Amino acid sequence: MNKSLLRKIKVGIVGGTGYTGVELLRILVRHPLVEISVITSRKESGIAVDQLYPNLRKHINLKFSSPEDGDLTKCDVVFFATPHGVAMSQAYNLINHGVKVIDLAADFRLKNVDVFEEWYKIPHACPEILAMSEYGLVEINRSKLLNVNVVGNPGCYPTTVLLGLAPLLQSEQIFIDLNRIIADCKSGISGAGKKLESSSLFAESADNFRAYGVSGHRHHPEIVSQLEIMSGKKINLIFVPHLVPMIRGMFSTIYTKILPKYRDIDFQKIFEDRYKDEYFVDVMPSGNFPDTRSVRGSNTIRISVNRINDEDLVILVAQDNLVKGAAGQAVQNMNLIFGFSEVIGLEHVAILP
Amino acid sequence: MNKSLLRKIKVGIVGGTGYTGVELLRILVRHPLVEISVITSRKESGIAVDQLYPNLRKHINLKFSSPEDGDLTKCDVVFFATPHGVAMSQAYNLINHGVKVIDLAADFRLKNVDVFEEWYKIPHACPEILAMSEYGLVEINRSKLLNVNVVGNPGCYPTTVLLGLAPLLQSEQIFIDLNRIIADCKSGISGAGKKLESSSLFAESADNFRAYGVSGHRHHPEIVSQLEIMSGKKINLIFVPHLVPMIRGMFSTIYTKILPKYRDIDFQKIFEDRYKDEYFVDVMPSGNFPDTRSVRGSNTIRISVNRINDEDLVILVAQDNLVKGAAGQAVQNMNLIFGFSEVIGLEHVAILP
Amino acid sequence: MNKSLLRKIKVGIVGGTGYTGVELLRILVRHPLVEISVITSRKESGIAVDQLYPNLRKHINLKFSSPEDGDLTKCDVVFFATPHGVAMSQAYNLINHGVKVIDLAADFRLKNVDVFEEWYKIPHACPEILAMSEYGLVEINRSKLLNVNVVGNPGCYPTTVLLGLAPLLQSEQIFIDLNRIIADCKSGISGAGKKLESSSLFAESADNFRAYGVSGHRHHPEIVSQLEIMSGKKINLIFVPHLVPMIRGMFSTIYTKILPKYRDIDFQKIFEDRYKDEYFVDVMPSGNFPDTRSVRGSNTIRISVNRINDEDLVILVAQDNLVKGAAGQAVQNMNLIFGFSEVIGLEHVAILP
Amino acid sequence: MNKSLLRKIKVGIVGGTGYTGVELLRILVRHPLVEISVITSRKESGIAVDQLYPNLRKHINLKFSSPEDGDLTKCDVVFFATPHGVAMSQAYNLINHGVKVIDLAADFRLKNVDVFEEWYKIPHACPEILAMSEYGLVEINRSKLLNVNVVGNPGCYPTTVLLGLAPLLQSEQIFIDLNRIIADCKSGISGAGKKLESSSLFAESADNFRAYGVSGHRHHPEIVSQLEIMSGKKINLIFVPHLVPMIRGMFSTIYTKILPKYRDIDFQKIFEDRYKDEYFVDVMPSGNFPDTRSVRGSNTIRISVNRINDEDLVILVAQDNLVKGAAGQAVQNMNLIFGFSEVIGLEHVAILP
Repeated sequence: MNKSLLRKIKVGIVGGTGYTGVELLRILVRHPLVEISVITSRKESGIAVDQLYPNLRKHINLKFSSPEDGDLTKCDVVFFATPHGVAMSQAYNLINHGVKVIDLAADFRLKNVDVFEEWYKIPHACPEILAMSEYGLVEINRSKLLNVNVVGNPGCYPTTVLLGLAPLLQSEQIFIDLNRIIADCKSGISGAGKKLESSSLFAESADNFRAYGVSGHRHHPEIVSQLEIMSGKKINLIFVPHLVPMIRGMFSTIYTKILPKYRDIDFQKIFEDRYKDEYFVDVMPSGNFPDTRSVRGSNTIRISVNRINDEDLVILVAQDNLVKGAAGQAVQNMNLIFGFSEVIGLEHVAILP
Repeated sequence: MNKSLLRKIKVGIVGGTGYTGVELLRILVRHPLVEISVITSRKESGIAVDQLYPNLRKHINLKFSSPEDGDLTKCDVVFFATPHGVAMSQAYNLINHGVKVIDLAADFRLKNVDVFEEWYKIPHACPEILAMSEYGLVEINRSKLLNVNVVGNPGCYPTTVLLGLAPLLQSEQIFIDLNRIIADCKSGISGAGKKLESSSLFAESADNFRAYGVSGHRHHPEIVSQLEIMSGKKINLIFVPHLVPMIRGMFSTIYTKILPKYRDIDFQKIFEDRYKDEYFVDVMPSGNFPDTRSVRGSNTIRISVNRINDEDLVILVAQDNLVKGAAGQAVQNMNLIFGFSEVIGLEHVAILP
Repeated sequence: MNKSLLRKIKVGIVGGTGYTGVELLRILVRHPLVEISVITSRKESGIAVDQLYPNLRKHINLKFSSPEDGDLTKCDVVFFATPHGVAMSQAYNLINHGVKVIDLAADFRLKNVDVFEEWYKIPHACPEILAMSEYGLVEINRSKLLNVNVVGNPGCYPTTVLLGLAPLLQSEQIFIDLNRIIADCKSGISGAGKKLESSSLFAESADNFRAYGVSGHRHHPEIVSQLEIMSGKKINLIFVPHLVPMIRGMFSTIYTKILPKYRDIDFQKIFEDRYKDEYFVDVMPSGNFPDTRSVRGSNTIRISVNRINDEDLVILVAQDNLVKGAAGQAVQNMNLIFGFSEVIGLEHVAILP
Repeated sequence: MNKSLLRKIKVGIVGGTGYTGVELLRILVRHPLVEISVITSRKESGIAVDQLYPNLRKHINLKFSSPEDGDLTKCDVVFFATPHGVAMSQAYNLINHGVKVIDLAADFRLKNVDVFEEWYKIPHACPEILAMSEYGLVEINRSKLLNVNVVGNPGCYPTTVLLGLAPLLQSEQIFIDLNRIIADCKSGISGAGKKLESSSLFAESADNFRAYGVSGHRHHPEIVSQLEIMSGKKINLIFVPHLVPMIRGMFSTIYTKILPKYRDIDFQKIFEDRYKDEYFVDVMPSGNFPDTRSVRGSNTIRISVNRINDEDLVILVAQDNLVKGAAGQAVQNMNLIFGFSEVIGLEHVAILP
């Protein structure tokens, strides 16, 4: 990766017009070791990026290319901020040209092709690349990610649930009953993306709270498969997502049952020890609860560990769904892969109020 | 109109799935003198109304009909909660069957066909019916509306600006400089309707404020033409609409210059006298300002009269854009036409907080 | 109760300036069988009610009395929309004068005085009246409430959790594991009342989501005690409340484990049967989820029954915290006690959008 | 100012707990040439800053000092993020110790002591320092600010109106009628600060729009006095502020009348020329309108110039009230005074969505 020491790396973004795309841009235009070379959008090709996203005026001087014209093979790394199915169709060509691929969609999140095809209703285009790819949850998989060519950037809900549970499942010890995990998760509306759907209209979603996907959500198999990798055991997870009338932010309330033999453990300390070297994971002091605004616009995920009684441990997790839950985490992966300091370009202080 | 004394009137609604449609339903299902007979929607035909709008569960037991099947000619009155152009294509047939027509779109708002066609980009289908129709601003046109067959229900912005200015322009006296009227208007997002447009998404419009239509908005000619009818004079109006991140509500700040000879007038009294018999127009006591929440869900429009200095009079007007600015005003017209008490079915107290 | 047939009943409200107070007013000013006689407020005494709450202009013509002056003993019923501790200090005198008392605070919610004193940190002023009072959850306790003098109107969270669980616990059958009930509850900000607290400021709570009271909330013993009365058994409940950036609305996601012997039961039918005669409880059709906006401003509570798998049943419950969760339920109790139709004055259609 | 070349400057903040205080912190903790030495707060003294503002966790390791203990005289610059009246009581001592003072309140905004005392109802403590101070609107007063000891940082509304009008009033030419300027201004709720006032509660201000200060607002004399300095003429300004249910953001719609002799002028070009070298002022391309979200969290102010007709020019201005309208502008002043690049530490991209 020494090339990164000599020059800025060239970055391509496929599908730069959605919310994860513009968030990648917000972060990358200020990243000191990066040059944005290509941004593609079929629909907006020829349009200046800052025409569509005026917050980027004076920060970027680039037009959207059509997917055909944008020469992605000359990039060092390409981010896919696209619907599911796009990255896998282009990954083979890119890695053949030595280009790293970071997919913000789901093409490389589920190692089991059958599970992928069941939930995403499309055949997987490159199972052999999937097999070589890694799941980009840096705090869990750091060592595996160092030399990888293709990263499946985690889903937003999975990021909160996996980092919220990891200290309880990893290493040799499993502290909780794997059959009794409930994740009650809440997301801001930007999680639904910029698609034109009636339910995402302001007049439909403001001043309102609702559950959705109760009978099944694609992030369920993603969470379960990673928890099973972590623990080496079968997991039974109940997962109910909800929508909150706020633009950004995700909050997960995770209910676990402590196994009888671990009821004397200081779980606050378990979490603090596990994450003490992680810049982006903040274990709150005991008795302090996270809120989503304290992470708004930042790559930080805040966790609070709550011992309700002898048996019950409730983990609260807050993140910005577009940053640690998507674009920020993708840049964190890029930093890691190219040997940069992991935090570079990601030191934003959350905007509060 | 004696038929209304003997039985409930039969109401039809064309286009019941948009926001003015569901608001008509919210009001009419509780109106004691009305029976909703037909609701049409091409897209939702066959679907139960309360499936689309669960707030109506237990209040209505009707399905959307296709426009072809719904037998509107058997109704006493039909409301058009449709895009511009629909009502005028059906008005002739309906009034031939003795059915009253109340159009919540713009087909019968502009008496001048040329102006209509310039702003709405469609030919007017029935200029002769337009000529017989009346502009349904009850507080201004009550006597003309009593025996009318077709009502053009006013636009939301025009309702606020016209009722805010009427006391200054009517009768023999014109108190203000007709060349110096500025209406700075602000609307909640529901004013944009339920159309799928990117700018109406929660993540685009929440926590945001912006102007739009600065170079021209269809309500401008509507306001001007009505002001000119009121005053019998040429009017010069600057009108800038804005969008506020709230679901409902409309607020207009109207800047006027008092003519020199009227600078000793007590304008608070002028307004109070003008509206003392109007149930739905509330002139606030001097020094009290309206806010949109105090009219949320009600048919009330609140007005405050502010003498800034010798020359300047600033009128503040607040209404619920979906009620007094649309469906409530339409029902008020219906009540008037059928000889009911004007307030029946419209006595809702605004929801606060 | 025949007096109610002859004349409107006289209603007093103590503490009419908070959110439950103004909501009582919104409902009662339109209630056809009620006359509001007295509203007290120490802080606002002498001020016209509609000066403080302009939504009530033209609907009420009354001033706030000081608590000393307002003659509550001449009322038929007095609502306490006050902080905890006020109703119990006045209940004795009122019921001695034949006045019914409906307390919207917690003074008569917990039958066990010790539990009350532990959670509310004040001695109970009238244990003997507490013993005679009833918990005003009409759908559960209707028959007991008919002849009662003092009603403890349920808390907002308890209303959702109790009505969400009642069909699973009542009668001879207990369908679920009483040691594994989790209620993840979410409330709009009005639930915190009109108190001046930093955390209730717009700039602190908008665009934000957070948990609170994780280590203990006063509604926990209220829910548990009522569940134990219903089931006749010991209950283990985990309850975590959260705050949602919306004004009104409450949503509870309740996780239960079906007992092995009942895994063939059709729980949708259990709920529909239990509530088929309840006007205010709406069991949604299978596959439909409630949202808070579909109950905004109405006394309806919507419930959806979700069988996630063999073992897990997730109940979703939505209500308006100020109506069914407070003032509406209080009026429902009043209707019941005075022999009125239970729904009179409470037929509001929810405001949507 | 060469000391700044050798070491980071030491910064003190008085009153670090309000919204302008925490926003100063958000900016300054990432400013590469600054070391935050002291933060005072009477109320929170002894508390860790990141305990009160968890968004600053890992970014700052400092406690609030009591005003008596914090040694401000050792700082290079002290920001006052305090109520009006505090800075003027301490300015003399600080500048005697060679400390620069930047006041974010109004103590040094109005050069005329009588006007100050009329509007702020307190005597001015140091008229002689006021006389030496400068109004910190960098884009207008840059040269005067270079060697100043005390800066009156502009109010939020004045910043928008002054930068929106400056190109029309400066130099030898006055393009507009000085008797016909109307500023209709809209602010997010954070503009009211963190004070505990009923009207700032979420349940009072969400989903609501209202005007306030119609009969007079302290920013009116500030705007007028600066416009009169710019133009050398008497100004007649109508200014009506409003509150928008969003946390941050300010939007001003400014109505002007073009003088007859200038009706052939290309005002778009006038604005572009005036601001072509200003990093923080963005003149939007013709036909593009600003919105507040496109400046959220950034120090940019966006302006659009709209020729409505021959006579009428409408200027739209958007900024983040806490950044360019307060803390960001204060840091811009600091950068200028200490000879830093004006943009350093202020290059944030606005958060969108």
